[in-house]
Amino acid sequence: MLDYIRVGSEIYDKSFAMIRAEADLSQVPEDLEKLVVRLIHSSGMTDIVSDVAASKGAGAIGRAVLANGAPIICDAQMVAHGVTRSRLPANNEVICTLKHPETPALAKQIGNTRSAAAIDFWLPQVEGAVVAIGNAPTALFRLLELIDEGAPKPALILGFPVGFVGAAESKAELAANSRGVPFITLHGRRGGSAIAAAAVNALAQEKE
Amino acid sequence: MLDYIRVGSEIYDKSFAMIRAEADLSQVPEDLEKLVVRLIHSSGMTDIVSDVAASKGAGAIGRAVLANGAPIICDAQMVAHGVTRSRLPANNEVICTLKHPETPALAKQIGNTRSAAAIDFWLPQVEGAVVAIGNAPTALFRLLELIDEGAPKPALILGFPVGFVGAAESKAELAANSRGVPFITLHGRRGGSAIAAAAVNALAQEKE
Repeated sequence: MLDYIRVGSEIYDKSFAMIRAEADLSQVPEDLEKLVVRLIHSSGMTDIVSDVAASKGAGAIGRAVLANGAPIICDAQMVAHGVTRSRLPANNEVICTLKHPETPALAKQIGNTRSAAAIDFWLPQVEGAVVAIGNAPTALFRLLELIDEGAPKPALILGFPVGFVGAAESKAELAANSRGVPFITLHGRRGGSAIAAAAVNALAQEKE
Repeated sequence: MLDYIRVGSEIYDKSFAMIRAEADLSQVPEDLEKLVVRLIHSSGMTDIVSDVAASKGAGAIGRAVLANGAPIICDAQMVAHGVTRSRLPANNEVICTLKHPETPALAKQIGNTRSAAAIDFWLPQVEGAVVAIGNAPTALFRLLELIDEGAPKPALILGFPVGFVGAAESKAELAANSRGVPFITLHGRRGGSAIAAAAVNALAQEKE
């Protein structure tokens, strides 16, 4: 028998204790502390703390709107499948429109990626929603463009696209001008679906 | 209009070019070069190269067995949803047994996590399969234990659990003694479902 911890709750408790022992959370606002711990937990990296940026009170807003039943709109199936349904406070709907049958045609029409085109199909539900972007920079750029064109605003943008082209740029744009929408993001190239889902899971419940 | 690249193929091409310009791939075996590029692409981190470890020829083996129709068995739904179906060379089956109705009861019985218990339900299909572990260290430990107990062997283990408790340890165990099974892993705490899925996607096709 190999020697390792087999009890899920012990693994969680020890992980969170290790994170709090190692990471410098002194500059993290109180309403984001548990969220930042969970971002670190999902990525295995304590040094992401300094790249986290958020509008004031964004954590508290996220908890409140989820408790009130806000839907969660995701740019990728991986994000949607990373949201722990049992943690959701109001059986919140989790939406991903990437596989909408009209997405490929719309992508061609607007000259953008399918991830960006899928955002247009969010519009009927985006007002007051929690948006979780964990994959495509073009999705975050497109969301900001649609808001500029007068689209309804979500209650919170969790902006965590990842990669080499557009990820850092789209998150910098969000942080510089979130169009009045509360936001939480991670500057730079790092991000991804696990981090985006971890942010949702952190806001869904106070309980760790 | 915001200024960003909107064409998916351009984003891919530019991303892969940036990775090859920045990352030191000189020590990466030829059959793993495209795979390592894709791991970097999925994570936004060029410095993971030095943490990659693999048995000799593991990349070539992975490509060959996927071309021959090997199923892909995943420890998490996020990994399964990160596998790009259109890249699979033989309409390969993608399996995740985490939601098997008997998983919670078995977890209790064996005194392990649900992720570890789910591995037991792989057994009818694990021989010759490509295993992709992108979440739970306990899943990787359990797989090695079952092989020690005489379970059939997969053709390849893609070992990318992430986190603070058991992730580095389970991957060190895999690399130190893979029980004769070809493997590819990423030492340390980093890993995750996007990286595990990227490994599968890289082996599915030569085309980038």
